[in-house]
Amino acid sequence: MLTASYVGDGTLKVAEAEPVAPAPGEVQVEVAYVGICGTDLHILHGAMDARVAMPAIIGHEMSGTVAALGEGVTGWSIGDPVTVMPLAWDGTCPACRAGHQHVCQHLDFVGIDSPGALQGRWNVRADLLVRLGADVSLQHGALVEPVAVAVHDVRRSEVGLGDTAVVLGGGPIGVLIAVVAAAAGARVLVSEPDAGRRATIASLGHETFDPTAGDLVAHVEAWTGGAGADVVFEVSGAAPAVLAATAVAKVRGTVVVVAIHPQPVPVNLQRVFWRELRILGARVYERADFERAAALIADGSIPADTMITAVLPISEVAEAFASLESGRAMKVLVDTQAVPA
Amino acid sequence: MLTASYVGDGTLKVAEAEPVAPAPGEVQVEVAYVGICGTDLHILHGAMDARVAMPAIIGHEMSGTVAALGEGVTGWSIGDPVTVMPLAWDGTCPACRAGHQHVCQHLDFVGIDSPGALQGRWNVRADLLVRLGADVSLQHGALVEPVAVAVHDVRRSEVGLGDTAVVLGGGPIGVLIAVVAAAAGARVLVSEPDAGRRATIASLGHETFDPTAGDLVAHVEAWTGGAGADVVFEVSGAAPAVLAATAVAKVRGTVVVVAIHPQPVPVNLQRVFWRELRILGARVYERADFERAAALIADGSIPADTMITAVLPISEVAEAFASLESGRAMKVLVDTQAVPA
Repeated sequence: MLTASYVGDGTLKVAEAEPVAPAPGEVQVEVAYVGICGTDLHILHGAMDARVAMPAIIGHEMSGTVAALGEGVTGWSIGDPVTVMPLAWDGTCPACRAGHQHVCQHLDFVGIDSPGALQGRWNVRADLLVRLGADVSLQHGALVEPVAVAVHDVRRSEVGLGDTAVVLGGGPIGVLIAVVAAAAGARVLVSEPDAGRRATIASLGHETFDPTAGDLVAHVEAWTGGAGADVVFEVSGAAPAVLAATAVAKVRGTVVVVAIHPQPVPVNLQRVFWRELRILGARVYERADFERAAALIADGSIPADTMITAVLPISEVAEAFASLESGRAMKVLVDTQAVPA
Repeated sequence: MLTASYVGDGTLKVAEAEPVAPAPGEVQVEVAYVGICGTDLHILHGAMDARVAMPAIIGHEMSGTVAALGEGVTGWSIGDPVTVMPLAWDGTCPACRAGHQHVCQHLDFVGIDSPGALQGRWNVRADLLVRLGADVSLQHGALVEPVAVAVHDVRRSEVGLGDTAVVLGGGPIGVLIAVVAAAAGARVLVSEPDAGRRATIASLGHETFDPTAGDLVAHVEAWTGGAGADVVFEVSGAAPAVLAATAVAKVRGTVVVVAIHPQPVPVNLQRVFWRELRILGARVYERADFERAAALIADGSIPADTMITAVLPISEVAEAFASLESGRAMKVLVDTQAVPA
């Protein structure tokens, strides 16, 4: 099999390796497709070197089929199509004991803190597997993880039927949030400076706005009849968007912080106070989110083909990362079984 | 009667005036005591000149008795002890239509946007009156408004029995939040740099911490068994406290923004994301908060005598403001009926 490892210095190394048998409690998955996300780019850039043990096989958005069962594993058969919910919690920290295992204080994020999916055969804990429908294409199945992020963000926002939702940032997660929020009955507006992305979003039936060409606050004010938006999703990671988020939210509106802001950024707390806003952090997903995401993929609610910009063989994993880096791609998949030409 | 007006240039002017009869729908209140708060200091400093129509009779924390009834007013009798909930909403804006009248988009805050209580006889809309118990001292009754702020903040936080609550800032509102949160069953820790205030807070039975002499984050970590605080109230208005607030909150913890931060301040959104925190703005109070505050004053739950540092006659209103300005006083009351010596 081939593996792709981050070895530091902005480098991914592709190598041959022999599969090993799954340990007790593990399943060996024949990995089909691995999606690349912003976190993987952060790793490649060295921003997470303190956390990643090199050489590190990364990758946490995936699909595949069960290839072998470790000792004691029940409920799975060879050939079952699966994805993996890549969160392993300790179960003993205060957050776990309070029922928030997905944000365990000592969370092992599989594919970051422990080996991930960019390998032909991957041994993972059986309890992390999530079943894919038999009719789901494995390319689409690789999108369950990012869709679960969107489902979590939307569920956390409590956005409901007829509510107005503004999404700041129309990258892959922003688009998926728009799709899921619309599926939850919301009217959605996506603010995104890139014209290509706006065209894609418009093709999916969502309203868009170019924040570089007009006044977003005035636009949302008019769009909502002077109320402001019920819910705002900050997905851009840009400091000005954080100020925009509070500016466009209605009285008692909700701002969901989806993006990563590595450094403290200015927030208009006067507005938070004045309008009694609610700012919510939203990170990864709970098991229920993951299973709902798999169901949304299975029933065709997610425009999976539109989301997948390119599929490249694992031998071209560096090109796959570069494609995502360009900012033009939505989702780039790596085919871990493709034989190099 | 005497009136005290803000006339600009950091100046309060005391003058004689003739009472006028209440208009239809109004009640004339013989004002007994008026509390001074941080907002009144902001007005005196000129920070709200764009909003205040000078000369402005300010003051919005008060007690008094019904002195005369305007045409059409029912349900009140001469001599009834009252306080005033100083919020007049338009009832038609999106926030009002959504049921959030207390943060109406065009709120008239009585005593800021329209004439307040620093006058011997005050004509106010009858529907803003809140009844005081017959056994409640009128000095204590003047505390209902700030207690209502605390009740609103605590209710908005959803703090509950056995929860841990950290209050950042032990001024009058911080102390009242501590008292009300403790009454709601919380374990409370107040972080306050001033030794005198800490002593007062400790005398009320609450734990205190001096943030200038130790590591608040480590202290709260130990105090909560490694979990972090369930609820944090940011009452200080200091930028470092905003960073401390997210640092001491538990996974899925709540930070309530009580203080006014006129300019955007750095917030650790990475921490908000990582721990899935909830930041809530909390402004003024709803009618239910006000009535609960009156009940807490009536049943002795609020240490009113400890809160009242001084009572000065209206002729010495400037001294009253200066006393509060010093940062040593908790609550300073102005006696509007006292005859100058």
